[in-house]
Amino acid sequence: MNIDNKPYRSIWLGEDGVSAEIIDQTKLPFALETVPLKTLDDAAEAISSMKVRGAPLIGATAAYGVALAMRADASEDGLDRACEVLAATRPTAINLRWALDEMKTELKALPQGARVAAAFARAAEICDEDVETCRKIGEHGVGLIKAHADKKLGAPVNILTHCNAGWLATVDWGTALAPIYRAHDEGIAVHVWVDETRPRNQGASLTAFELGAHGVPHTIVADNVGGHLMQQGLVDLCIVGTDRTTANGDVANKIGTYLKALAAKDNGVQFFVALPHSTLDWSLNDGSAIPIEERHAREVTHMTGQLPDGSIATVAIAPEGSSAANFAFDVTPARLVTGFITERGVTPATEDGLRLLYPEQRKQAAA
Amino acid sequence: MNIDNKPYRSIWLGEDGVSAEIIDQTKLPFALETVPLKTLDDAAEAISSMKVRGAPLIGATAAYGVALAMRADASEDGLDRACEVLAATRPTAINLRWALDEMKTELKALPQGARVAAAFARAAEICDEDVETCRKIGEHGVGLIKAHADKKLGAPVNILTHCNAGWLATVDWGTALAPIYRAHDEGIAVHVWVDETRPRNQGASLTAFELGAHGVPHTIVADNVGGHLMQQGLVDLCIVGTDRTTANGDVANKIGTYLKALAAKDNGVQFFVALPHSTLDWSLNDGSAIPIEERHAREVTHMTGQLPDGSIATVAIAPEGSSAANFAFDVTPARLVTGFITERGVTPATEDGLRLLYPEQRKQAAA
Repeated sequence: MNIDNKPYRSIWLGEDGVSAEIIDQTKLPFALETVPLKTLDDAAEAISSMKVRGAPLIGATAAYGVALAMRADASEDGLDRACEVLAATRPTAINLRWALDEMKTELKALPQGARVAAAFARAAEICDEDVETCRKIGEHGVGLIKAHADKKLGAPVNILTHCNAGWLATVDWGTALAPIYRAHDEGIAVHVWVDETRPRNQGASLTAFELGAHGVPHTIVADNVGGHLMQQGLVDLCIVGTDRTTANGDVANKIGTYLKALAAKDNGVQFFVALPHSTLDWSLNDGSAIPIEERHAREVTHMTGQLPDGSIATVAIAPEGSSAANFAFDVTPARLVTGFITERGVTPATEDGLRLLYPEQRKQAAA
Repeated sequence: MNIDNKPYRSIWLGEDGVSAEIIDQTKLPFALETVPLKTLDDAAEAISSMKVRGAPLIGATAAYGVALAMRADASEDGLDRACEVLAATRPTAINLRWALDEMKTELKALPQGARVAAAFARAAEICDEDVETCRKIGEHGVGLIKAHADKKLGAPVNILTHCNAGWLATVDWGTALAPIYRAHDEGIAVHVWVDETRPRNQGASLTAFELGAHGVPHTIVADNVGGHLMQQGLVDLCIVGTDRTTANGDVANKIGTYLKALAAKDNGVQFFVALPHSTLDWSLNDGSAIPIEERHAREVTHMTGQLPDGSIATVAIAPEGSSAANFAFDVTPARLVTGFITERGVTPATEDGLRLLYPEQRKQAAA
C-alpha cells in the first residue's frame, strides 16, 4: 500500500541482495525508518522486539532469517539451530512455525552448497505468495463491504477493527484491512473505527498510520468504546485478523478481540476474521490448547509517545508499587464469528466451513 | 481510607471554615496535592476539569459549590445561577442533579441571611451521609465476597473492577471498592484486577493508587484483558460503580463496563453494580435516554505520565492526522447485571428488585 503515494512493502530484499530490509514498526507513527537485517540474530531480534509483528510478517521475516542463517552456516546443524532460534521468538503466531517448516522442507532436500540461493529464493517467494494471498483476501472480502454499501446509499460503511491486521502485519495489503483497501480503491465509501489496542497501541500507532497514509477515513477509539458504538448502530461490520485459528474455527487474536466479538453478537453486528491458510492450525481441535504469550508488565505501566519538541519519550502511567499483567492474546470461540475471509473465499466459522475451502487437509486422528 | 496509614477523605471543609479542600485527582498517582475551592467557579472548574470525579464526589463538590456561591450572592438569582453553572459541568452523573436539588430545596425555604450557614451545614451533611452510605454498601457487599472466600480455602478472592469507584470517587470508602476494603480490613484475602480504563486511566492511576495506599493486593490490566481472565477462571466476581442507573436497572458507567458485563455473562461470572440511592434515576424508565458525555479527542490521542526524572509530561500516541472519538460512558443493560449493592442491601437488577429496597419511590405515570 501507499505512504504519501509511494508504494511500500513491509519487508523486501536489500539492494545488496544478501540482507532483508524492514520498516522498524516500533518507531511508527512518528518516524519511518528502515532497518537492514544481516544475520539470523538480527531477524530473531526484529521479531522478538516487535520491530516486525503480525502473524504473516513474522512468518516472512522468519523465512529471511533462515536465509540469512544459511549464509553463515548452511549445514544441517545450522539449519536446525536457525529454526530453533526463530521458533522461540514468539509463541502464539502459527505462521512462524509454518514458514520455518516450509524453509526446512525446501532446504533439507538440497546439498549445502545450493542452500543459500534456494533459501533467499524461497523467502522471496513466501513474501510474494503472501502478497497474492492477501490481495485475494481483499478480493473475496470486498463483497461483504459492498453488501452494506448498497444499503447505505452513499453513506460510508462503518467497519471496526482491532489491533493491526493491515499491510504492516503482512507483506502488503493486510488481512483484515485488505477488503477495506480494496473497497476504498474501488471508490466505495468506508470509515474505519480503529481500536487503540492497549497495551502496545498497534491500532492507534500502526493501523491509524497506514490507513491515514493510504487516505482511508478512520477514527481512533479507546478499546472500551466498541460496545457502545455497536449499541448505537455505528458499526456495520467488524473485521479482525488472527494469529492462529484452530480446526474448529476458534480464533486466537490480539487481547480484547473476544470482547468485541461478544458485543457484535449481542448487537447483531457481523464479525469477520480474515486469514491466510498459513494461520490455520489444523493440528489443534480447539482454541484451548493455543499458548497465550505473556509479555512484560512495563508495556502496561509505561507508555511511549512523542513530546511536543518531536522527541520520543516513555512515561510511567501507574503508581510505582503496582504490578501489571500482560496477556497478549485471547481466544474468540467460533460461535461468535460470522465467517472467515480467506484467499479461497468466505466461509462460515465452523470446521465444515473451513474444510470446504481446504479439502486437502486430512482430519486429525481422534485422540 | 488510608494513605500511608493516615486517614483521608476526598473533600473536606478547609481550616478557614469557608472553603472546601479537595485532592487534585489529575495529579495522582504521582503527586498528592490538595487544592482549596473558594468560589463557585473554583468548584465548577474542579468538576469539569476532573480534579474531582466520580458520581458521588461530583455531587458533594456541587453541594459545596452552592455553599461557596451563597457567600458571594445568597439571593434567589444567585442560587439559581449557581445551580445552573454547576449542573452544566458534567452531563451523565445523576448525583450532581440530586445534590443540587437537595441544596435548592433546603435553601429556598430560608431567608437570604440564613443561607450561607445552612448551605455549608447541608454540604457537610451530604458528605457525612455519603460516607455512611458507602460504609453500608461495604457492609452489605462484603457477604458476596465472603461467599467466594469460603469456597477458596484461603486463596484470594479475585475481583475485577473498572474505572475508579473507590473512596476517591466518593467522600470515603467508595461504592464498588467499599466491599473490597471491608473484606480486606476484616482479614479476608482479596486480589483486585484493576482495569486501566482508557482513555483517562482512572483505573491505573486512581484505583491502583488508592488500593496500594491502603495495602490491598491488586494487578493492573489493559481494558482488553478482562474477557481472557474470565475465560481462564481468574475472576470470581466483578464489582463496578455507576454514574446513573435507571428505574429498570440499566447501568450507565464508564465506557467499557458493558464489554466486561458481556464477558461476565458469557463465563458465568457474577457482575455486581454498587451504588447509593442518589445514583438512581427514577425518572428514566431505561438507559436509552441517558445522555452520554463526549469528551475531547486529545484525551485519546495523548497520554500524560511521569518521565524518568520525575517531571510530568504529555506524549502524543497517535499519528497527527488521525481523529479520535471519546465517548465517556456506556449503558449496560440490566439483563447482564447480577445484582445491585446499595446502602439498603443487595437486590436483583430489576425494577421490582430496586422498588423492594426503595418503596418510597412512586412509579412514574406511563407516558
